Amino acid sequence: MSFRDRLEVCARFTPGAYRPLIIAGCPLGRVTHAFASSLQNYPDVFTVYEHAVTLSPNFKTVEARTEAVAGVLEDLKEKGLIPGWRGEHYAISESFYDAPLLTVERAAVPYLGTMGYGVHLNGYVHKDGDIHMWIGKRSMQKPTGPGKLDQMVAGGQPVGISIWDNLIKECGEEAGMARDIAEKAVPAGTISYLTEQEDRLRHDVIFNYDIEVPSDFEPQPTDGEVDAFYLWPIKDVMDRIRSTDDFKYNAALVIIDFAIRHGALGPEEPEYILINEALRLGRAGENSVR
Amino acid sequence: MSFRDRLEVCARFTPGAYRPLIIAGCPLGRVTHAFASSLQNYPDVFTVYEHAVTLSPNFKTVEARTEAVAGVLEDLKEKGLIPGWRGEHYAISESFYDAPLLTVERAAVPYLGTMGYGVHLNGYVHKDGDIHMWIGKRSMQKPTGPGKLDQMVAGGQPVGISIWDNLIKECGEEAGMARDIAEKAVPAGTISYLTEQEDRLRHDVIFNYDIEVPSDFEPQPTDGEVDAFYLWPIKDVMDRIRSTDDFKYNAALVIIDFAIRHGALGPEEPEYILINEALRLGRAGENSVR
Repeated sequence: MSFRDRLEVCARFTPGAYRPLIIAGCPLGRVTHAFASSLQNYPDVFTVYEHAVTLSPNFKTVEARTEAVAGVLEDLKEKGLIPGWRGEHYAISESFYDAPLLTVERAAVPYLGTMGYGVHLNGYVHKDGDIHMWIGKRSMQKPTGPGKLDQMVAGGQPVGISIWDNLIKECGEEAGMARDIAEKAVPAGTISYLTEQEDRLRHDVIFNYDIEVPSDFEPQPTDGEVDAFYLWPIKDVMDRIRSTDDFKYNAALVIIDFAIRHGALGPEEPEYILINEALRLGRAGENSVR
Repeated sequence: MSFRDRLEVCARFTPGAYRPLIIAGCPLGRVTHAFASSLQNYPDVFTVYEHAVTLSPNFKTVEARTEAVAGVLEDLKEKGLIPGWRGEHYAISESFYDAPLLTVERAAVPYLGTMGYGVHLNGYVHKDGDIHMWIGKRSMQKPTGPGKLDQMVAGGQPVGISIWDNLIKECGEEAGMARDIAEKAVPAGTISYLTEQEDRLRHDVIFNYDIEVPSDFEPQPTDGEVDAFYLWPIKDVMDRIRSTDDFKYNAALVIIDFAIRHGALGPEEPEYILINEALRLGRAGENSVR
């Protein structure tokens, strides 16, 4: 087992298994051939071609696109084709910084193969001359990665809230962290990946944040999404990432990135350059790990 | 002007302008058609095909390959085709962590288009509640980037010395830094790029290090490679990188990476994701900036 295994899990992609999903003329998603077949039942909304699926150009506004697609997705949910409904919408746009073309239920994003965004917060303290990280254990009730280890705080990025406000909100909800502590979080870069997980396609960019919490702070499970928190020396965290798949696939990447930035993983590691290059890929055709 | 300009300068590549240089069966470099023509004069060492140049398989050891290629390069130097001779050898290998197949004069590396490696050290202090960075001004006598702004310490990675020992040595030579201070440097990741610079091809991986120096430490120009050192607030450094090309092309990338890791450049920057992804590319065909 090696860090490379953790990277490869985040770069699983089957060429030929998808058709581009074209929205307002842009290829913004990827759907499996099976999902494309399901969309054939909604010809007023989607046109299913052999090599692509397009959203009807008749819907010309964010509201019209959102409403039309929501009707289809609700129907597919009733048919059991979209499990794990969240009741939370993600934006679909040409890039994160562009205005949304439409918004869709979060659970549908990996079926549409459109991009998702998230905020992950590495919580740490300096103790006994070394970095110790706060690690969360995800609830067994989570629709994705139940029981897996994760960052102290991690959440998806829904529409209608800024990244920063979302981070502060998640700090309170997931770890019982007061706003005045949470506001000490510092942005530290992004990681990205395109990978098949649990038969769905995850194409995400994660905004990483670090926070050195006070030594007397202990995160508290608050909203039921985290079962427990542990404080482990970074060496133990890294050993566990290297030798097990206990961590959620994307949480492992976020921690490897943290370890690189804080010098806990250095050039003596023979996969160092490969790991550095792999952490920030994630675009189609560029996410292979050499 | 934008940070994107700094990235694009590090991703200049003319498709079709090179032939692969094959060494021991591996495509490890890229030579221009003009340089390939020059190599036709040494048929015992190089075989020049229309679409590739190969090093003769008759040389079967590191020593034999090194000696044969050195003879050719010395001759090309005499003809004025390889300026800026360093008297320092770089390793050529399948990857940084593999044993060298041969070593070559450093000045020849961008003509052979083989990979180079370097160590760059971000020196900084916390002052007035903000990060201030030590910036070096390169001597006008440097063969590359004369007069450009640079990291406090930066150097190529020759054969026969570890990355760490090279860093400590450069700290002493370039900035007059005592070993006990230099040893506080911490590895912080790599950046990589493939780019045409001054009619040569630079395909490098840089090992980044950070060091928070004591507030009373002042780097001293020692070996004539640096003319002066300045201590600037990181905001001023970033403004200068965004709006001028005063910094050496690769030094700008190293600082942008530093600013991201330390939260001085965050998600509010509309090119944030693009910058994150571009910093660690640098492989053929994957170094385009979208």
